[in-house]
Amino acid sequence: MASQYSWDNFQSLFFHDVESGLSLDVSRMGLDKAFFQKMEPLMQNAFHKMEELEKGAIANPDEKRMVGHYWLRNSQLAPTPELRQEIDDTFTQILDFTTKIHEGEIRPERAERFTTILSIGIGGSALGPEFVSSALSTPDDPMRIYFFDNTDPEGIDHVLAQIGEELRRTLCVVISKSGGTKETRNGMLEAQNAYDRLGLHFSKHAVAITGRDSQLDRTAKNEKWLARFPMWDWVGGRTSELSAVGLLPAALEGFDIDDLLQGAACCDKLTRSKVTRNNPAALLALSWYKATEGRGSKDMVILPYADRLMLFSRYLQQLIMESLGKALDLDGNVVNQGLTVYGNKGSTDQHAYVQQLRDGVNNFFVTFIAVLKDRHLPSMEVEDGVTTGDFLSGFWQGTRQALSESGRASLMISIPEVNAFTIGLLIALYERAVGFYATLININAYHQPGVEAGKKAAGKILELQAQVAEILKKSGKPMAAPEIAEALGAPEKAEAVFHVARHLAANTRLGISADNLSAKAKFFYDKHLDY
Amino acid sequence: MASQYSWDNFQSLFFHDVESGLSLDVSRMGLDKAFFQKMEPLMQNAFHKMEELEKGAIANPDEKRMVGHYWLRNSQLAPTPELRQEIDDTFTQILDFTTKIHEGEIRPERAERFTTILSIGIGGSALGPEFVSSALSTPDDPMRIYFFDNTDPEGIDHVLAQIGEELRRTLCVVISKSGGTKETRNGMLEAQNAYDRLGLHFSKHAVAITGRDSQLDRTAKNEKWLARFPMWDWVGGRTSELSAVGLLPAALEGFDIDDLLQGAACCDKLTRSKVTRNNPAALLALSWYKATEGRGSKDMVILPYADRLMLFSRYLQQLIMESLGKALDLDGNVVNQGLTVYGNKGSTDQHAYVQQLRDGVNNFFVTFIAVLKDRHLPSMEVEDGVTTGDFLSGFWQGTRQALSESGRASLMISIPEVNAFTIGLLIALYERAVGFYATLININAYHQPGVEAGKKAAGKILELQAQVAEILKKSGKPMAAPEIAEALGAPEKAEAVFHVARHLAANTRLGISADNLSAKAKFFYDKHLDY
Repeated sequence: MASQYSWDNFQSLFFHDVESGLSLDVSRMGLDKAFFQKMEPLMQNAFHKMEELEKGAIANPDEKRMVGHYWLRNSQLAPTPELRQEIDDTFTQILDFTTKIHEGEIRPERAERFTTILSIGIGGSALGPEFVSSALSTPDDPMRIYFFDNTDPEGIDHVLAQIGEELRRTLCVVISKSGGTKETRNGMLEAQNAYDRLGLHFSKHAVAITGRDSQLDRTAKNEKWLARFPMWDWVGGRTSELSAVGLLPAALEGFDIDDLLQGAACCDKLTRSKVTRNNPAALLALSWYKATEGRGSKDMVILPYADRLMLFSRYLQQLIMESLGKALDLDGNVVNQGLTVYGNKGSTDQHAYVQQLRDGVNNFFVTFIAVLKDRHLPSMEVEDGVTTGDFLSGFWQGTRQALSESGRASLMISIPEVNAFTIGLLIALYERAVGFYATLININAYHQPGVEAGKKAAGKILELQAQVAEILKKSGKPMAAPEIAEALGAPEKAEAVFHVARHLAANTRLGISADNLSAKAKFFYDKHLDY
Repeated sequence: MASQYSWDNFQSLFFHDVESGLSLDVSRMGLDKAFFQKMEPLMQNAFHKMEELEKGAIANPDEKRMVGHYWLRNSQLAPTPELRQEIDDTFTQILDFTTKIHEGEIRPERAERFTTILSIGIGGSALGPEFVSSALSTPDDPMRIYFFDNTDPEGIDHVLAQIGEELRRTLCVVISKSGGTKETRNGMLEAQNAYDRLGLHFSKHAVAITGRDSQLDRTAKNEKWLARFPMWDWVGGRTSELSAVGLLPAALEGFDIDDLLQGAACCDKLTRSKVTRNNPAALLALSWYKATEGRGSKDMVILPYADRLMLFSRYLQQLIMESLGKALDLDGNVVNQGLTVYGNKGSTDQHAYVQQLRDGVNNFFVTFIAVLKDRHLPSMEVEDGVTTGDFLSGFWQGTRQALSESGRASLMISIPEVNAFTIGLLIALYERAVGFYATLININAYHQPGVEAGKKAAGKILELQAQVAEILKKSGKPMAAPEIAEALGAPEKAEAVFHVARHLAANTRLGISADNLSAKAKFFYDKHLDY
């Protein structure tokens, strides 16, 4: 192990870019010369595939789509003048709209100025804006943002209660690439309902970010919403933060979206290097490959030592797990690939699960993320010559050392500080690392065939719900779940019937009640409850 | 697989308690008759060991401590009258203090009333209060809570900026069992500094929750803080939510702490059953054992379909991973045990990583948590006969079905609604399941020997920092990291020196600067920067 921790090994595997300040240390990942040699042809192939992707190749073969998120931060790369124009126009449109909102030129129906944003979206239409807001927001921002990122009525009510009276000064940003996501549609209808209760028109407080001519786009157009911003089929949800999906909320919050794009563009430039050891995204992808034997055999623990970056792991869960978690490789072989991501922040997580990381099951590698600059204000000393920030820095170093001592692999990324530029940088770094890694393991990183099954099954559950309510209403007598399933001619659905009926009874919906909620429960219809 | 999804199998492995409304479905975990038979003697041993623990046995042999968190919700169980009295007195003290704070009888130095809480603690002294606050808080609560749960100066500044002018009406609750946790000490000093800047006395806005005669306890006593509440050595940090650590913040926020305790007491009663199939904590522990072969071979994904429960997985990361992630078993064999926990909330996470769960690497089992009651207000319909809550319910059922179809194991917990009682119930359920499981795999769940190494190493880093600054000041010339390490007589510390010097230079602290921040950086002392 000695050589892995030597200065020579460290400096040969410590990447630093002076311009952006990005550093990456992969010296404790066991990447020896033999590994680099073995992987070099695969890595060169990944560089080549990425180059083709950036030029507009159909990099998502299943959906027959180009993959163009790299064009968003450098429209000159876009393969046609039309695409280039669209990207540039959208950016201008975002800036113009934001200025008008901030200056009160576009104003709410019955108030002077918009002060609050309610972002309605889920998954790729929420995680980026949530991460960026939590990284960059301050109480002095021109607008404060809230999120509906689920279809949980209690969660919706809680957000509405937090917004309270400010709803009349709230701009709703409805984000759905397909325009048909049920959670987002539900959130939009619930929001609309809340404006209705105040006697306000939702349409006068709403903008849409969606694909052209999607259901959402048509609604926004017909109802004359304040604005519509485009999403393109060549930008995937999980790589959409630097499209209007992320840029509009960020601009409205007062963040420098040009810096965000510049940070990403800067990282794109760095990670186009075909010299593996000079390419931080390649070094990351190779580290993942080495740590997980190219098959996700270990989890990726993300430990940013910065409160501001706490949501980065949630952002990466989507970017990485949805991109890499695939049943089939590009040749159609069953591979069940993936790379599990979790983590919150250090040193906080040291007090939660570093016990297991150091002593327990060795099923992970850690990504430490350090922010070099502690704070903007001068620091007090909490001990002689030592600040709060020195402790934070000491903790990641100490923890990393303790993990190394017990043979746990880790890598380290550092950025100079958390700002729009470095956030753009981090997003772009992981986007490209994911792209490289996908080529190394020969999978399509840009589709998500596995999510449809759950949606379809959920649709069937809602159909079943109507049938269960109907049967109970017709029969007029208490029935247990298997009886209802039998009456539906689908005895194999007894368990599903049970859950549907229980949920209806717990909410006394559609007139359904129950004598109890155990597996022996009898469900029945009561017309007095059917209002 | 047919039989695993049959109604007979489902109802035989579906636990429901009518009184509390708790349900647990382990029918899709592959727990067949042979498994139950094989495990029964081990499970009976776990019941027996738990019984002894509850009676006051030294259940944490390494630290020679009793483990008494179960007494907190039923002081009658405490093994001595003195302990019983202390528990009861503390509860009364919390209620009295809270009343006085809410009624303005205890008031800030220069304001009428305390309106805000700043909780300063980390790990076991933060995760519980954070989880409970996020589960139960509303904008109508008598006090609003903020957290310092790290030693990140930028994070501290952000929280202080959010509190803003309200700091003069803010009650600081400093929580550290040992009273010596550095992160908490730092947070306390930073908070004190903020009060100083307003010309206010920190001591007139502070209470301590800590072990008797700890450093924190003595500080609080000497400086005459508003109050001191006890922590006991028989309550571990990760099981301290139902001690003053969790109860005081909860009471101040206006939550019903008696309900919280009652919920836990109710679950304790249920989980004392020695009939394995009637004991939900035993069924959970056995499910974990089956899914992970009793050695943590799969991750536990926690998917509560409720925004209110989003922090439950972070709470469980500590409870489970710190308890179970152990190098040695009770006989001293190296076992490297553990059980990895991650997750956020459904249906949101469906749009993040369910792609991988369904199609990708099969390295996990899912715990679905459903909340039966959708919301307190009546629901609008978003489609004919269907509400937002019906969708939420449909999504967990649909996703679970899709996972089952691709052979992924899952279990399901449901509670009637999210309130203080059911939060107490969930906490107690997992506390006992962890205790049972630890006995099944023969480890000590109540110590954390692995966290010391990182803390010690961090301490050494801070010592090194002083030495590095000293060397650079003395030498007066630019030096690279290996040169500094050489001059320290510790050439093997070049990498550590590099990180320490880089951090100092990035913050121009102690007069240290650098020509750049790459591995070739030269660091130097500049007296003009040493202020």
